[in-house]
Amino acid sequence: MGLVVQKFGGSSVADAERVRRVAGIIADTYCEGNNVVVVLSAQGDTTDDLIEKAKELNPAPSKREMDMLLSTGEQISIALCAMSLEKMGLPVVSLTGWQAGITTSSDFGSARIRRIKTSRIQNELDKKNIVIVAGFQGITRTGEITTLGRGGSDTSAVALAAALNADVCQIYTDVEGVFTCDPRKVPGARKLEEITYDEMLELASMGAKVLHNRSVEMAKKYGVNLEVLSSFVRKPGTIVKEVTKVEGTKISGIAVDDDVARITVVGVKDEPGVAFKIFRVMAKEKINVDLIIQSLGKNNEQDISFTISKDDLDKAVNALGEYEKSLHFDHISTDTDVAKVSIVGAGIMSASGIAATMFEALYNAKINILMISTSEIKVSVLIPAKDADLAVKAIHDKFFE
Amino acid sequence: MGLVVQKFGGSSVADAERVRRVAGIIADTYCEGNNVVVVLSAQGDTTDDLIEKAKELNPAPSKREMDMLLSTGEQISIALCAMSLEKMGLPVVSLTGWQAGITTSSDFGSARIRRIKTSRIQNELDKKNIVIVAGFQGITRTGEITTLGRGGSDTSAVALAAALNADVCQIYTDVEGVFTCDPRKVPGARKLEEITYDEMLELASMGAKVLHNRSVEMAKKYGVNLEVLSSFVRKPGTIVKEVTKVEGTKISGIAVDDDVARITVVGVKDEPGVAFKIFRVMAKEKINVDLIIQSLGKNNEQDISFTISKDDLDKAVNALGEYEKSLHFDHISTDTDVAKVSIVGAGIMSASGIAATMFEALYNAKINILMISTSEIKVSVLIPAKDADLAVKAIHDKFFE
Repeated sequence: MGLVVQKFGGSSVADAERVRRVAGIIADTYCEGNNVVVVLSAQGDTTDDLIEKAKELNPAPSKREMDMLLSTGEQISIALCAMSLEKMGLPVVSLTGWQAGITTSSDFGSARIRRIKTSRIQNELDKKNIVIVAGFQGITRTGEITTLGRGGSDTSAVALAAALNADVCQIYTDVEGVFTCDPRKVPGARKLEEITYDEMLELASMGAKVLHNRSVEMAKKYGVNLEVLSSFVRKPGTIVKEVTKVEGTKISGIAVDDDVARITVVGVKDEPGVAFKIFRVMAKEKINVDLIIQSLGKNNEQDISFTISKDDLDKAVNALGEYEKSLHFDHISTDTDVAKVSIVGAGIMSASGIAATMFEALYNAKINILMISTSEIKVSVLIPAKDADLAVKAIHDKFFE
Repeated sequence: MGLVVQKFGGSSVADAERVRRVAGIIADTYCEGNNVVVVLSAQGDTTDDLIEKAKELNPAPSKREMDMLLSTGEQISIALCAMSLEKMGLPVVSLTGWQAGITTSSDFGSARIRRIKTSRIQNELDKKNIVIVAGFQGITRTGEITTLGRGGSDTSAVALAAALNADVCQIYTDVEGVFTCDPRKVPGARKLEEITYDEMLELASMGAKVLHNRSVEMAKKYGVNLEVLSSFVRKPGTIVKEVTKVEGTKISGIAVDDDVARITVVGVKDEPGVAFKIFRVMAKEKINVDLIIQSLGKNNEQDISFTISKDDLDKAVNALGEYEKSLHFDHISTDTDVAKVSIVGAGIMSASGIAATMFEALYNAKINILMISTSEIKVSVLIPAKDADLAVKAIHDKFFE
C-alpha cells in the first residue's frame, strides 16, 4: 500500500495490444491497494512521424511550434491508455503536462522542470482515480507548451515521484533491468538486483541506454527510489538507490561506447597553458571532451590526446585548424576506429587491484590499450574498435565467472 | 485594413501541399495589411483515425478521454500551418483552444462556447503576429479539454470573430460559395453573391452542407459578416449577412434532403389531443420531426403523416407501437423512398405566386407531391426519391433560366 509512479516508454505503448498490456500492469498495481500515477511517452514512431511532417513544410521550424506539434504524441498515448483502463471498469483520468501542473523553463525543445503544482493530481488520487500523465512536456509560466528533450518522460516520472513523495518510481522499458554488460553480446551477462545512483550515472553516460542521466541525477538529488523493469516480462527489475547491499563482486557493470573519436594534437610546446587553450577552443564550440592524455614532454614538445563524440570530429578539427598559429602545434591526427570500455562500481578505487584485474584481462586477450582514465567509481580504457566485443567478454569473464 | 478571421476545414489542410496553399492565402491577407486570426480543423482523416484507435481499445470510451484524444488533431494542424508561415518569414504563433481563452461548458463531445478571453490573442495581434487557433476545442472552468462537436471549427471561428469584433469571418471550404442548388447535379446552378442568415439557416438544415447551423445562428446573433469561399480557387465567395441586396429573383436556393422517412399513423380518432400525444412520444425519444400533415377526418377517423430522419425510423415505429393502445390507431405505414425538395428565399411568402410557380414546375415534370410545408422563407415538398434530381432541375429552370 503506497504511492507508485510508473513510467512506460514509447515501445511499451506502440500499439493497441501493448497499451492493453500496460493497462494490465497498472490495473494490478492499483488493485493491490496502491495509489498509481502513470507517465507515458508517445506511441512508437509517433514522434518521428510528426517530425517528418514538420520537415516537409519547414526544414527549420521554430522550437516553440515543434513543441506544440510533438506534445500531441503523449496526449494521444494518455487518452488511449485511460480508455483501456476504463474498459476494465477502473476509475481513471488522463492529464496533459499543463493539467498535471508541470511548470518548466521556456527553453523550448529542452525545457527544465521548475516546479510541480501537485494539487490536481492529489485531488484525483484522493478520489481514488488512477492518474495518467503525459510525459516529456510541461508549460511555462506564460502558458506556453514545452517539451523536455531526450529522455524527457523519465525526467517527468522522477520529478512527479519526488513532488508526490512516492514510494517508488518504476521505469518500464524493453529490457528486464540493468545488466553487468550488454546481454546481447555477452551470454553470461547477469541482471543486477540493485545499483547506486552514481554507478547508474556512469553506466548511462557510457551507452548503457536504460535510463537517461537527467532522470538519474534528479532521482539522486531527491532520493527517489527507482526501479528499472520490463513491460513485457513480469519479474522484478533493478533497484537504483543511494546505498546498495554489498555484493560479492566490487564492480556492477561493464559498458561499451563506440561513439568515440580520438584527436591527437601533435607537437605542442611543452609550456603552461597549452591544455587550457586547446580545451577552451572545444568549450567555445560546445564540444564535450571525455578522456584526456597529455604525453610526457621531450625536446620541449609534447602531444595531447582526447576523445569526443564522432559527430563532433569535423567541427573540432576545423576549430583547432583556425587556432593553429596561436596554439603552435605541428599537426593533428585523428582516429575513429576506437571504442571506450569501462567498468563501473561504487568504491572501485578504494578496492585495490580492480583496475589491475581489468588490465590483466585485456592483456590475456592481447588487446592494446590506447588510453586510460579513472574516477572514484569507474575505470575506462580506449581500445581499437574491432576488439570491443572481445574486451567486454574477457573483462566480464574475469570479474563475474 | 482590418481584422480578418479565416477558417479552413480538414480537407483544406489534408496534406503538406494543401497546408502550403492555405499558408499562401493567410500570407496574402496579412501582407495586404490585415490582422489575421486563423482557425483550423484537424487534417483530413486524422479525427477518423484517432476514433478508430480509440475503438480498438474501448468501444465506448468516456467522452472526456475522447476529447483529450481528438483535440490533438487540431493541435497538429495549427503547429504545421504555423511552421509553413515561418518558412515564408512571417511572424506567427499557434494557440490551442485553451491558450486562445476559449471557455466552454463541460458537455464533453458537444461543448458550448461560454466565453472567450481575448487578451492573449489581442496581445499577439498587437505584436503583429498572425494567430493560428485550434478550432473545435476549448477548456472548461476547471481546466478540462473539451470539443465542440460537429461543425465545431466553424463555431470557433464565428465566436472568435464576434469576440474580437472582426470585420469579416471567412469560412474556406472545398466549394466556391453558396449555390442556387447543387452544382454537381444542376449544370445551370449559380453562385450567390449574398444570402441572409435566415436563408442560410434553412439551406444548411436542408442538407446544403456548406456551413453548420450553430455557426450561422451565432453569426446572426452577434452580427458577424460571414463569407463562404474556396481554399482551392481564388475568387470571391458568398457573403452571409442580415440584409442582402435585392436581386432579380425572389428565391436564393433550392435544396434536396434525401435523409427523410415518412411515417403515417393511419386511423387515429378525430378528436383533440391526438397530434399532441403522438408528438409527445417523439419528443420523449428525442426524435426531430420535420414536415407534418394531418388529413381531413372522415368517419370520425383521420391519418397523421410526418417526416423524420431515416436513422430514427425504427426507434419511432417501436415507440408508437408501445403506445398503440392509448393512441387508438389502426396501423402505421412507413416510406423511406422519399426526398424533400425546398426553395428558400427571404420574404418568399410575401411574394405571391412563388409556391404556385414551384408546384407548376413539378406538375410539368409529372412529379407527384406527397406533402407540402411552408414557412416565411421556404416552401418544402415531399416527393418520391427517384424524382428528386428531376425536380431540382425543373424548379431551377423555372426560377433561374
